[in-house]
Amino acid sequence: MLSRMSRTIRPGISRRRALVAGASGVIGAAAALTAQTPPDTTKIPGTGATEIGARSPFEKAKRRPGPGRSTSSTTPLQELHGIITPADLHFERHHAGIPSIDPAHYSLLVHGMVARPTVFTLADLKRFPARSMIRFLECSGNGGRNYRPDPEAHTLSPQQLDGLTSCSEWTGVPLATLLREVGVSPNASWFLAESMDAAVLARSIPMEKGFDDALVAYAQNGEALRPGQGYPVRLFLPGYEGSTNVKWLRRIEVAAAPFMLREETSKYTDPLPDGTARQFSLVMDAKSIVTEPAFPDRLAGAGWREIRGLAWSGRGRIAHVDVSTDGGRSWQRAQLEDPVLPKCHTRFRLPWHWSGGETVIMSRATDETGYAQPTRAELLAVRGPGTQYHFNNIRAWRVAADGTVTLATGAA
Amino acid sequence: MLSRMSRTIRPGISRRRALVAGASGVIGAAAALTAQTPPDTTKIPGTGATEIGARSPFEKAKRRPGPGRSTSSTTPLQELHGIITPADLHFERHHAGIPSIDPAHYSLLVHGMVARPTVFTLADLKRFPARSMIRFLECSGNGGRNYRPDPEAHTLSPQQLDGLTSCSEWTGVPLATLLREVGVSPNASWFLAESMDAAVLARSIPMEKGFDDALVAYAQNGEALRPGQGYPVRLFLPGYEGSTNVKWLRRIEVAAAPFMLREETSKYTDPLPDGTARQFSLVMDAKSIVTEPAFPDRLAGAGWREIRGLAWSGRGRIAHVDVSTDGGRSWQRAQLEDPVLPKCHTRFRLPWHWSGGETVIMSRATDETGYAQPTRAELLAVRGPGTQYHFNNIRAWRVAADGTVTLATGAA
Repeated sequence: MLSRMSRTIRPGISRRRALVAGASGVIGAAAALTAQTPPDTTKIPGTGATEIGARSPFEKAKRRPGPGRSTSSTTPLQELHGIITPADLHFERHHAGIPSIDPAHYSLLVHGMVARPTVFTLADLKRFPARSMIRFLECSGNGGRNYRPDPEAHTLSPQQLDGLTSCSEWTGVPLATLLREVGVSPNASWFLAESMDAAVLARSIPMEKGFDDALVAYAQNGEALRPGQGYPVRLFLPGYEGSTNVKWLRRIEVAAAPFMLREETSKYTDPLPDGTARQFSLVMDAKSIVTEPAFPDRLAGAGWREIRGLAWSGRGRIAHVDVSTDGGRSWQRAQLEDPVLPKCHTRFRLPWHWSGGETVIMSRATDETGYAQPTRAELLAVRGPGTQYHFNNIRAWRVAADGTVTLATGAA
Repeated sequence: MLSRMSRTIRPGISRRRALVAGASGVIGAAAALTAQTPPDTTKIPGTGATEIGARSPFEKAKRRPGPGRSTSSTTPLQELHGIITPADLHFERHHAGIPSIDPAHYSLLVHGMVARPTVFTLADLKRFPARSMIRFLECSGNGGRNYRPDPEAHTLSPQQLDGLTSCSEWTGVPLATLLREVGVSPNASWFLAESMDAAVLARSIPMEKGFDDALVAYAQNGEALRPGQGYPVRLFLPGYEGSTNVKWLRRIEVAAAPFMLREETSKYTDPLPDGTARQFSLVMDAKSIVTEPAFPDRLAGAGWREIRGLAWSGRGRIAHVDVSTDGGRSWQRAQLEDPVLPKCHTRFRLPWHWSGGETVIMSRATDETGYAQPTRAELLAVRGPGTQYHFNNIRAWRVAADGTVTLATGAA
């Protein structure tokens, strides 16, 4: 590929000029010119070591909070590389703001259909055998503007469209360990997870998940959870919709049936065309998005570049990602970058030669269960127009002849 | 193990009181009491979403810069979980401070024994097919106070002793791609990597490494490199000693022999007992350290807890880690946590029941080449007392009957 790349880019003008032109046209790649830099950095000593490392003033990657006193913020997917999302750029979604909690006064009550109702302090939780896992977390409302009619959708960046998904290394005590400690009744089949935020957010979770890979998490990317991610303790349910990963976790109640709470009756259900509704549609289906090229990129010239994107599934590992650069007429298998982990963002890459003409780029993820990301038409047929969550239909980017890239809602 | 853990902790007093006592005695686990928290977080709305997430005021994990205008800072290993080091807690080591560089004016020259000397802009580098990899980076001087006689060594924390190692996901263009683009001469066998910092730090690297897994890196943990880590571009050489991973990379010169620079003649060589010296001892050998329990922990009572630590090797994957809780008389195999990646920190865990008596805890890593971490006596015999780098001998922690934990230099 590399030799073809060279041959293709080099003719006419020098490869350097070709590459500079090709890349300098990408909006957002130009650095701010305000920060002070010396004419020759080899001639003056630099700054000393610090307790906390700062970002370069030339870098502008930030989350986008909604307007006003926002209850959510989105991850800048188009500006990130690899699969790890820095903790301070991980998306936020909360229903009554971020509470301030003193870990010395924190405790978790586990009760209900158990032999030994127990209150665990943070120190108790940290003393149990721990587990770390790199996993994605996605809000089930992520990506709705790629499904419902939206006249402005074409000017959405990956961050604006799908920025409610992120991926980190989470550490905590397996919930199964706590459930065994308290002695769960054999008749128990669900549990309640309740937050200590001002919404007292609560969800019902199947007991199987509690004994499978559920984590009572106190760390993200090596360090303590940040307040926006549930400090000091959150529930982490790999592959489950975001709102079930209850932050600021204060109570788990074991029961024989779901609790039929607001967030699983009036919200987080999926109305279907036949008038019924899917309830407890907890697992996030396989999904992918090309993060480069994407709006607001502008390709300044034909030639080779790398198509980059992310794929993930709440059901396990990504098996493969197919990419089309001709509006879906043909598909090529993208390279998946190691490590390919279960229920984890997976980086895919595909070298692409742009001829300079208008085209549409799409990606389609298939997970290890064989489930393939549907088209919008396929999803619309089974979910209907009224659905509010789980928008995993194929994303498409239209590349115009002038190199501008826009979201092509409904193209796939 | 869990049931044994329960049985062992519960008798006498309630498991909760036992656990609280057991954990509250760990120095550093107590939260600061200054930050403001409401009496009931469910009764007042929390704070809104933000562009950048902040840490909890109760968390104090920080790097430790040396005195004065420091040229290094250390990662708080004993306060971190899993394998990922946040970018702003990754250790720093620089020889003339951190330069401030405008990425719009950045370029990398690749020249010497090549067919097409080329200057690459940052945009050029980002356009090439990229690769991400989770790998450790360690300063070759890390851990010297566990080797040389040091009366204060017993009061060193993992951060103070071995905090010059960290682990992140690095993204960039494989150096092999650039070497093929410029057409390296078949007679070339080494290359120079030169920094644009005030030290103009430079090292000679074998060409085989350049074509193997060397990365010209522009991102760490998803985001752009931070200035302290080489912004906008650094060389990343998986498994090689830290100083060869040249930050603020401005020049690569291809040659037929090493350049015999200051940092590979007067520094970064290993004087041996016979008067000769090891030169270009570039690969970091297998090593491990128990991060919990460790100084300044104080165990407040007998019972079950988890021994936690990190192991890594510059030669590939960690094959296994053996842990002794009786001063080296017997060894148990620790659990290695997935994913176990090559040239990457690997988290190991072992449940341990402390009887309450004095003992010494050690860990010994073995990598996939079969190389096992040596004792201090073994390392001293081959390296002699004058060596300055590559201190990978076994670390040992002495647990006193009162629960205090200190570094037992020379115990292994």
